[in-house]
Amino acid sequence: MKELKIGVIGSGSTYAPELIDGFIKRREELNVKQVVMMDVDSERLEITGNLARRMVKRAGMDTEIILTTNRREALDGASFVVTQVRVGLMEGRARDEKIPLEFGILGQETTGPGGFAMALRTIPVMLETAREMEELSPEGWMINFTNPSGLITEALSRYSKMQMIGLCNVPITYLMRFAKLYNVSVEHIYMDYFGLNHLTWMRKVYLDGKDITAEVTERILEGDAQDLLGFPFNKSMVRSLGMLPGGYLQYFYHRDRILEKQLTSGNRAEQVMKIDRELLELYSDPDLNEKPAILDQRGGAWYSDAACALISAIANDKKEIHIVNTRNKGALGGLPNDVVVEVPAMVNSAGPHPLVMGELPLGIRGLVQVVKTYEQLTVEAAVHGSREQALLALANHPLVPTVDIAEKLLDRILEENKAFLPQFYH
Amino acid sequence: MKELKIGVIGSGSTYAPELIDGFIKRREELNVKQVVMMDVDSERLEITGNLARRMVKRAGMDTEIILTTNRREALDGASFVVTQVRVGLMEGRARDEKIPLEFGILGQETTGPGGFAMALRTIPVMLETAREMEELSPEGWMINFTNPSGLITEALSRYSKMQMIGLCNVPITYLMRFAKLYNVSVEHIYMDYFGLNHLTWMRKVYLDGKDITAEVTERILEGDAQDLLGFPFNKSMVRSLGMLPGGYLQYFYHRDRILEKQLTSGNRAEQVMKIDRELLELYSDPDLNEKPAILDQRGGAWYSDAACALISAIANDKKEIHIVNTRNKGALGGLPNDVVVEVPAMVNSAGPHPLVMGELPLGIRGLVQVVKTYEQLTVEAAVHGSREQALLALANHPLVPTVDIAEKLLDRILEENKAFLPQFYH
Amino acid sequence: MKELKIGVIGSGSTYAPELIDGFIKRREELNVKQVVMMDVDSERLEITGNLARRMVKRAGMDTEIILTTNRREALDGASFVVTQVRVGLMEGRARDEKIPLEFGILGQETTGPGGFAMALRTIPVMLETAREMEELSPEGWMINFTNPSGLITEALSRYSKMQMIGLCNVPITYLMRFAKLYNVSVEHIYMDYFGLNHLTWMRKVYLDGKDITAEVTERILEGDAQDLLGFPFNKSMVRSLGMLPGGYLQYFYHRDRILEKQLTSGNRAEQVMKIDRELLELYSDPDLNEKPAILDQRGGAWYSDAACALISAIANDKKEIHIVNTRNKGALGGLPNDVVVEVPAMVNSAGPHPLVMGELPLGIRGLVQVVKTYEQLTVEAAVHGSREQALLALANHPLVPTVDIAEKLLDRILEENKAFLPQFYH
Amino acid sequence: MKELKIGVIGSGSTYAPELIDGFIKRREELNVKQVVMMDVDSERLEITGNLARRMVKRAGMDTEIILTTNRREALDGASFVVTQVRVGLMEGRARDEKIPLEFGILGQETTGPGGFAMALRTIPVMLETAREMEELSPEGWMINFTNPSGLITEALSRYSKMQMIGLCNVPITYLMRFAKLYNVSVEHIYMDYFGLNHLTWMRKVYLDGKDITAEVTERILEGDAQDLLGFPFNKSMVRSLGMLPGGYLQYFYHRDRILEKQLTSGNRAEQVMKIDRELLELYSDPDLNEKPAILDQRGGAWYSDAACALISAIANDKKEIHIVNTRNKGALGGLPNDVVVEVPAMVNSAGPHPLVMGELPLGIRGLVQVVKTYEQLTVEAAVHGSREQALLALANHPLVPTVDIAEKLLDRILEENKAFLPQFYH
Repeated sequence: MKELKIGVIGSGSTYAPELIDGFIKRREELNVKQVVMMDVDSERLEITGNLARRMVKRAGMDTEIILTTNRREALDGASFVVTQVRVGLMEGRARDEKIPLEFGILGQETTGPGGFAMALRTIPVMLETAREMEELSPEGWMINFTNPSGLITEALSRYSKMQMIGLCNVPITYLMRFAKLYNVSVEHIYMDYFGLNHLTWMRKVYLDGKDITAEVTERILEGDAQDLLGFPFNKSMVRSLGMLPGGYLQYFYHRDRILEKQLTSGNRAEQVMKIDRELLELYSDPDLNEKPAILDQRGGAWYSDAACALISAIANDKKEIHIVNTRNKGALGGLPNDVVVEVPAMVNSAGPHPLVMGELPLGIRGLVQVVKTYEQLTVEAAVHGSREQALLALANHPLVPTVDIAEKLLDRILEENKAFLPQFYH
Repeated sequence: MKELKIGVIGSGSTYAPELIDGFIKRREELNVKQVVMMDVDSERLEITGNLARRMVKRAGMDTEIILTTNRREALDGASFVVTQVRVGLMEGRARDEKIPLEFGILGQETTGPGGFAMALRTIPVMLETAREMEELSPEGWMINFTNPSGLITEALSRYSKMQMIGLCNVPITYLMRFAKLYNVSVEHIYMDYFGLNHLTWMRKVYLDGKDITAEVTERILEGDAQDLLGFPFNKSMVRSLGMLPGGYLQYFYHRDRILEKQLTSGNRAEQVMKIDRELLELYSDPDLNEKPAILDQRGGAWYSDAACALISAIANDKKEIHIVNTRNKGALGGLPNDVVVEVPAMVNSAGPHPLVMGELPLGIRGLVQVVKTYEQLTVEAAVHGSREQALLALANHPLVPTVDIAEKLLDRILEENKAFLPQFYH
Repeated sequence: MKELKIGVIGSGSTYAPELIDGFIKRREELNVKQVVMMDVDSERLEITGNLARRMVKRAGMDTEIILTTNRREALDGASFVVTQVRVGLMEGRARDEKIPLEFGILGQETTGPGGFAMALRTIPVMLETAREMEELSPEGWMINFTNPSGLITEALSRYSKMQMIGLCNVPITYLMRFAKLYNVSVEHIYMDYFGLNHLTWMRKVYLDGKDITAEVTERILEGDAQDLLGFPFNKSMVRSLGMLPGGYLQYFYHRDRILEKQLTSGNRAEQVMKIDRELLELYSDPDLNEKPAILDQRGGAWYSDAACALISAIANDKKEIHIVNTRNKGALGGLPNDVVVEVPAMVNSAGPHPLVMGELPLGIRGLVQVVKTYEQLTVEAAVHGSREQALLALANHPLVPTVDIAEKLLDRILEENKAFLPQFYH
Repeated sequence: MKELKIGVIGSGSTYAPELIDGFIKRREELNVKQVVMMDVDSERLEITGNLARRMVKRAGMDTEIILTTNRREALDGASFVVTQVRVGLMEGRARDEKIPLEFGILGQETTGPGGFAMALRTIPVMLETAREMEELSPEGWMINFTNPSGLITEALSRYSKMQMIGLCNVPITYLMRFAKLYNVSVEHIYMDYFGLNHLTWMRKVYLDGKDITAEVTERILEGDAQDLLGFPFNKSMVRSLGMLPGGYLQYFYHRDRILEKQLTSGNRAEQVMKIDRELLELYSDPDLNEKPAILDQRGGAWYSDAACALISAIANDKKEIHIVNTRNKGALGGLPNDVVVEVPAMVNSAGPHPLVMGELPLGIRGLVQVVKTYEQLTVEAAVHGSREQALLALANHPLVPTVDIAEKLLDRILEENKAFLPQFYH
């Protein structure tokens, strides 16, 4: 079995132990010789890194855990680089979620103006990382979890030659939920699933090859699985579509319900920051040498499973089907060939090979196309520091109602994120 | 010169005299032997028809004017059929403009839910007309002015084999305005102009072959032509686009400004009805034997010019460039080949041949794509009487903010238009 | 395990025992309850059918073997229908191979004018079969081996709604050869393989995920594997392509070498007929209850493996990669979406899902496009009995040097196959 | 009227007086201030240049005629640059026509291996010219007549940013012939015409807007216009196509007839050289001050008309339809957007705007696609000096029967043209 060096950029994240847990669980198929955990915050890194060392030790593995604040050290010669950075930290996220509300627009980490702001901050950093990988680990694969994942993958696929895959935990989350609903393990479920990152639909769901879409739709709409999608979508819409919308569609289909909730309840970022502090405290316990059970309860569940399974599919040439973010190349009709889409792909040692999904169904075509247009404009704006492209991006986003608002919103975002947007302030 | 029979469906319209005036002005190049004026309202028809007769007589022409309430009579053997019907009459339009306001959405005759309702009522009637033309005048050309013109042309091009062109007076209106601004006749101006009906942009404007786009943009944004576009668009947006938006873009880019105005001012349909009554009274004057000068002041100015010029281009094999609604066939990249677009086309005896316009610019691509998706869904809904397609159509429209609202809006529209929507109530 | 009924159309073929052998070998994963062996030649059927019964009995299986000359009986309720018919029998093939030689063109069963003639005879019969399946086994899958397989699949995919996959033993043959060369079992080899049936290239060959294309190319061109492709292709061409041509490319790249050989040696059909008679005699031996070892030595080796593996992938929802003939839908750029191509596809219970292969490399693009054009024209000719389309088909084929020859060749083919071409003689 | 400077590259050609004649005939619409006649052969230039001066003087025009061997002088500030160079001179053409015959392939100046050799010699020189125009006359338009015109335009459109149009005298020749057949002036004829340079079809022919295709086809096939196409094409083929093939199709459809004639008759290049010498002698007569009538009898008739009409369409913003070689951009479905095609285009001051022609008809699709593939490969070979791409180009050409012949032919062509192919011998 080939010895692997894994670089983890953003290892101070409280998600890091999940990844280590994933390598431990897959020790029979992944020979992880070294994990280089890198983060700019050495204090957090100390905490997550030491937990990682205790976990590996408890598992009786000899995987070397290296802690560093030097990104190049993590990338150098890496077989795989897992990226999960947050430029601007949680404070940035909090701003991203608050500013849109001032304009009557919902605030969300990855969707709408919030995701737009995050992309402007993050794309330059990720491009820099990609350039370093081109130099230091040209044979390696970047597995990107950094959000907004679709936009990051779009930018890197367009402006870097490095091998990369964008990953999201939404597909695996639904697979797991269907598996649980039918009391089977996840291999028994298959989804005909496609779209853009955080803008996806399930056209078909199969249980052991049997099409259960109609049945599962009824269980979701009227029956015992009303929580499955994560949001009570308008039933007529779901039936008219003939497909199941992924949870993030709530922000498009039901923006008013979300906005109302956000205006009355607290900020999501603040809740997450609180959990984050609690987790770090928990991780600091020198007696803790396992992934804490509590982790399974928050948003990123199964996150490590998706990443480790994908790494194994490449490392072991598995020819498995994974749902990933990768170049379209004809998989989804109605979108250009050179943009990034989220589709099932056969993954082997040569990377992801998307399955042909056919023309976008008419009922969702326009929405997918307009969001992709927004994404391409955002990437251009972020890479070139162009206010013009940035305005066009926001003005084209379905959640931004008017051009006048787009302009004011852009001014606010650029102003509030000034410290992180050198490309706009040169 | 070939003798022409012209059928005019909806001849009770107060626009009809403009068309007659157009034939009179082009008597040297169009040998109009017969105009069959058809309308379901024989009283109105009597008024407009008699005026037409007086106009022809005064011009010393021997064109025969036939009045009929039988559509087949107007279509039978026609060289050209001009259609300008209004299913549900002005009362329908008034409803179309009012219902959306109940949901906080702007009400407009052709754009948004108003245009959607109008399309549901009108498409079946126009399809019936097309079927009759296939039978009665298979060699003839339909020149459609019936609104919403883009949707009607989309429906007829998809579900009929008849030869047809969708026409709009917006392109000629801009040509005229640029000509006036530069004090030249209209032949000196050329526009690189494209999009969908009532969703168009001018990429370039030329004066005698010289690119005056930048200059004209500044005159519009900051100078002496601030009224030219018909709306004071956000200046940053116009500069970022690098193109001039057609006036109907106000309903997308500045919906809030429109909505505010509509909520405080009266209904457009009511104003138009008032003008309409006044015009009919005027037309009834047995001494009137010319197109009244007052006509030039309202929205449909130059309407007859566009139609007559187009008829002449076909009848006389002129190989002229006209901006028309016709099948895409590759003219606009980013849209399917089989949908209708509004683009410049070389028009000769074989009809319109669109010019290749290249890929949709990124700054407008998504909006054009999502509106076309909405149009295709609306056509399916209107033709098949499908509530599912109708819901998807409305839910996909950029002006409809949420799916819940789309559903309620659809219920209201179907209910209020029940008398005109047999396809939904069978 | 689901009980399967398999219909085998053309069961009098000496290939039939291979298929039975395949079911026996896969008894653990395929529960074949019934095999209905159908052939129009009851004498041959008696021989192959009785051998099948002895084979099943020896294996201790309770699979029911039914013999019939009634096709509908074989199709009725079948889970899978394997088709391997030969309209015009071996005598037809002999003619297909001889007539082109009269015009200085190589004679080949599936490629060029020979394949064209075979397609004209066979497409109507296969379409009839497809129509019956639509009626009698709408849920079933047709696995087609009938040659010319690409043309048959093109015709059926265009003119029938039945579920079908076209299969060829060339891909599996190469997989087996690479496996043998590297002394591994076939699962260790993966090919990036694409084109049209009998017009394919291997872009990449992988051993356990490692790209061995360059190495294997040198072994083939200069080393110890010079027989692997089945033909000594021009080395400069192989190197310029940067891909390995499938054996059938010999008929395009080296037509002169083939023609010379054919003009001096005997007819391939006659050799096959001789083997065929010998095999039937062998099969008649009542003591024979296994697939005779001699079968492995002729062209169709591993044929049953490909079919049974594909049946199992569908029946057991395996999500395996198989190389099949199926609708393009965007898999191969440079060809229309609605034509049939030969590409790797993920096969599960819902059938084949092609992998996106990207744009056709320039070095082969034109050849693939012109052969596909020929195929589409041939299908139109065969279905509609059109001499015009037939002439265009032949005149477009790269092996037919001039239009005058195409015309004479067409006359000869139509004349000689008159008895089998009712569509041209009505 | 704007003053024009015209550069003519290759002015020693005996075609040059035709161009001067064209400017004289269009003096009312083209204000040609200066013609800079450039040629590397100063002796020939002296002869054609002095004739040009006498012609201008006789016409009473004050156009300045400048003779130079310095290309940059001709390009500097030119409004239009007409290029008609012949790298390797007539001796090169003679070789191009002879070498293929050694391999049993017809020899033709622009088609097949002859055109291929010419392209390898000519593309680098034309690219150099284009680079100089980018520097010296970035606002100017190159009108290219240099053969093989399609390949040159493909190369320049791909590797230069200069404004250019490829022109051919075939379309205007057919327009003239139809006009003569119907005794009308050329404006009364319109052709629906498309393909690649020297590989074109007339789908429709119109007389004053009336479709006369069927009638004209019968006159050509059976009646009084059997010489019109310039070759007696196979009648069944023409009828099956439902379109009229351009004369150059003879080399594809009837290569055997051509080859036979070439093997028995003299070389075309030698005949042309003889005429060329006679013409130069004629031109030297100091009393000659008009275009000699004899010019109208040879191949390039109306050549100046096409060029001058095109120049006038741009200079005077005429919005006329001209058939030109330009980027596809969606005009011809079935070809990439970025390749050069020969199609009708609306020509105004901004250059050519192709008309949408729809999908390539099936009966010609493959041939057009394979020749375009050959062209793209040839351009890559010529630009990069790649033997691999050169072999693929020849091997893909429909006239080259086998890969082995392609290889030998390539060796001969590279060897014989060594002096002109520095890119292959560095």
